This record gives sequence, C-alpha cells and structure tokens, in this order.
Amino acid sequence: MKTVAAESALLTEREQLPGPVGFVPTMGYLHEGHLSLVRAARRDCASVVVSIFANPTQFAPDEDLATYPRDIERDKTLLQAENVDLVWIPTEEMMYPAGFQTWVTVENLTKHLEGAHRPTHFQGVTTIVSKLFNAVRPDRAYFGQKDAQQAVVIKQMVRDLNYPIHIEVCPIVREPDGLAMSSRNTYLDQGQRQAALSLSRGLFKAREAFREGLRDAEALRSIVVDRIKEEDLAEIEYVSCAHPEKLTELSGEVDRCLLSLAVYVGDTRLIDNVLLE
Amino acid sequence: MKTVAAESALLTEREQLPGPVGFVPTMGYLHEGHLSLVRAARRDCASVVVSIFANPTQFAPDEDLATYPRDIERDKTLLQAENVDLVWIPTEEMMYPAGFQTWVTVENLTKHLEGAHRPTHFQGVTTIVSKLFNAVRPDRAYFGQKDAQQAVVIKQMVRDLNYPIHIEVCPIVREPDGLAMSSRNTYLDQGQRQAALSLSRGLFKAREAFREGLRDAEALRSIVVDRIKEEDLAEIEYVSCAHPEKLTELSGEVDRCLLSLAVYVGDTRLIDNVLLE
Repeated sequence: MKTVAAESALLTEREQLPGPVGFVPTMGYLHEGHLSLVRAARRDCASVVVSIFANPTQFAPDEDLATYPRDIERDKTLLQAENVDLVWIPTEEMMYPAGFQTWVTVENLTKHLEGAHRPTHFQGVTTIVSKLFNAVRPDRAYFGQKDAQQAVVIKQMVRDLNYPIHIEVCPIVREPDGLAMSSRNTYLDQGQRQAALSLSRGLFKAREAFREGLRDAEALRSIVVDRIKEEDLAEIEYVSCAHPEKLTELSGEVDRCLLSLAVYVGDTRLIDNVLLE
Repeated sequence: MKTVAAESALLTEREQLPGPVGFVPTMGYLHEGHLSLVRAARRDCASVVVSIFANPTQFAPDEDLATYPRDIERDKTLLQAENVDLVWIPTEEMMYPAGFQTWVTVENLTKHLEGAHRPTHFQGVTTIVSKLFNAVRPDRAYFGQKDAQQAVVIKQMVRDLNYPIHIEVCPIVREPDGLAMSSRNTYLDQGQRQAALSLSRGLFKAREAFREGLRDAEALRSIVVDRIKEEDLAEIEYVSCAHPEKLTELSGEVDRCLLSLAVYVGDTRLIDNVLLE
C-alpha cells in the first residue's frame, strides 16, 4: 500500500494502477461502514484507491470540523489490512489554496432533507467529490447508504457532468444493537449512546409496520417521532418520508419511500434511514 | 477520422486512442482560429479529439443561439483535412436531459468584463467544458486567446477542480485586414464589416502607443474608444484595461494589461483584445 499527499504523487501512482480502479472517498476515522465500501471495491476492482480528507467546505461554521475525530495511523493500518493499493491524504492547503473559487452545485435535490438544514453542505460535498474524481479518475466509486441523500446527489452529479464512473451504494453497517456506524458516535457518552438507539429502533418499528401493510406517510413518520420522543436526551431536527430518488416529501399513501431523520443527542447530530419498498 | 454522437460511443473510441490526447472544444462553424488550435493539438499530441456543440447554457435568452451559424458537413471536412482522430457531436438532449441540475461555477473571475455583461455566460461555459473534460479525459486542451477571459476562467477551473489537464492558449487569428476571426463575422454586411475594423485598429493603435511608452490605463482605453467612435455603425459595450490574470480593472500607471472590448456592430456583438506587456 502506498500513501501519498501531493496531487503530483497521486497522479504518478495512479498511472501505474491496473484498471478497473475502485475509489472510496472518506473523511477518515474509519469504521466498519467505510471498510465495507473498501471490501466492495476490493471485490469488484483490480485496484483500490482510498482518500482521507476531512473536507472543510461541507461543514458550516457552527458545525464540528474542529472536533471531527482523526486518527490517520489507525486508518492506514485498517486500510493496509484490506489490501488497499493507494491512499491519498491531501492537506487543506492543497485542496483549497488561496484564491480557490470554483464550486460544483446540484440544484434541486439538495434543497430537501439534509440540504434544508445544512444549506452549504452539499455544495461542499459535490465540489470535493468532483475534485477527487478528477484527480483519481476511478472507474467505480463507493458510497454508503447511511448518507442516503448524498448518494442520490452524487449520482445526479455523475449523470449531469458526464463522469464515466459507476456509483455503487452499499448498505448501512450497524452496531449489534442497531445504531448506525458513524465517526460521530465517538462523541456520545453512555447515556447519549443509549438514547441514540431510539433512531434505529424508531425506523425499524416503522419498517415493521410498513411490512405489515401500513402505507400512510404521516403515520410512518409518527411511529419514528413517537419512539424518539421517549428519550429526553434526543431532540428531533427532522423525520422525513420522502420519494427515494426525487427526495420530495410524501403525504398520503406511499408505495416506496426513504424514511430518514436527523436527531441531536446532546450536541451530536446523528442521521439514519431505512428504505421502504 | 471517426465521428460519434452518443457518449457511450465516445467512451469506446476514446479508450482506443494512444496518449497524450489533445482536445479542442468548439461550437462548430469552424474558421482558421479553430484550426490553429487543432494544428497545435496535432503537433503536441498522439491523438486529437474535437467536439462540436453549440452550448445553449452559455447563451442568454436574448442572445443568438437560434441564429448561431452551423455547417457540420463543412466542419467535418475541415477536421478530416487536419488529421483529427475523433469528432464528438453530441445533441442538446444528450448534454442537457430532462432533470439536468448540476452547475460548475467560477466565482470571482467571472464578475468582470464579459461576465459583467453576460451574467449567466460563464456558468454555461465552465459547466459544458467540465462535462466535455470528464467524458473526453484529455491530457491537453486548447483554447483561443480571442476569448481571453474564458481562457483565464478555464485555467482557474482546472486548477480548483484538480483536472490533470494542461490548458494551452493559442494566439488570436486575424483576417488580413486585422479583424479577429469569429463565427459571428458571418452576420456582418459589407458596411458593418468595414466598421468592425475599428475594433482591431483601435487596439493596435493603443498597442503602438504602449510600445512607445504610454502607460496610463485611462489614456490607453481612450485611444481605443476614440477610434471606435469614429464609426457610426459601432456601439461600444465596454473597453477595458484590466489585470491580465485577475481581470480587475486598472487605473493609473500599468506595467502589463489586457486591453479588451465588446462592441455591437449592428446587432452583432464582437469581442477582441490585445495583451500589452
């Protein structure tokens, strides 16, 4: 496994890699969710490239960029164990030098869900993913269903900007008790960790009701809301029942939907979702 | 020379091309200016790709997209004669299908000069060039100095978005009497064609004065303005003396500058420039 920082070094190493090249962009502090993406890339592709970069432009000024957990040495050890070929760890100065002024923006899909509550987030995401795609030139790229809207937005960007890159979206990886894996779970104390279980439990309860025939969007949302409200430490930002591709909020009877949420547990903002179909 | 329309056909043909690959994006109705770019690419690169696409998103609703001159068969004959390897002629429906919603935007550089008078123009340019770059994946791309601001904006986009593509800017090609080559020159009647000479004559007069030691930005602009004002058929939109890379307007004494202009001759909007240094 080679590790590079400078883009010039990345380009040199990239040229040596046999295709198809699979790419997993990450913000580091890797967990089993990231590793499931790496394993999918390893299974599908001749070469696997991983980037580690906590992208500042997808954090708002009041968000947790400064405290976002980092452990590059541990990340490298984990990636080495997965037989990754090339790891790119650029610095903020490399990615956003003085005078930087170019943005990639997906317009409509980013107005909903996370985008409604984090208005500058997706511009940061699509810009950095575009930058990483341009430098790495992968054949396939791997994203997690945990960030459901991100996956939909990236697919739209790839289609609109003619990237010849296949986007693979891999299932959410959860802790044994159901909590969706997230680098931010490390922020939770014991009581918060317990309260955070209400997110997946609420979603699973709604999924169970959907399987038993419940189809009313408001009723599905209410099951989730009611379960989370049992926890004093949890504060709902939104619970949404949306069209899985258009991301527009649904009402009345639904055939398929993305049931998703953002909830604060203490100061920690957690997201989770289930796809019902 | 192969000609393709669908992106899938382009990708297949692209894979067969030996590198380095040179790319010349055009809007068609080719003239000696375009062909000078093709020749530069042919000189530098193992393979040459040309695209022909009159990009609707860089025209404002009141601009001349509908009447923009087209002659694909003549274009293909000209490109064949230059030993081009691959010509991509996508349709509008391919490039902007229903639901298209992703834009590439360069912020600061596009506020000046052309961008000040055509506020949506450069977003269209950078978006289509980004799309073409992603599909063609060239090693080198060729642009004309005629669109001086475009060249500066594309270079910024390439730097900011990590495209591993060298941008080559080639000199303006002029008619024997000095008029800068442009597909839009075909709009001019005989009297307008004569009046249009004032653009290059004004710029050359200022260049002569610069060579003789004149360094005052306002005086340089005035030479151009005064010459163009001699023509009743010409109406100035702007005459600018700007920093060649930052594109900010200059005043007082200048070492180097981009002297540029946009002038209406009848309904035809013409641009031209000289770099003074």
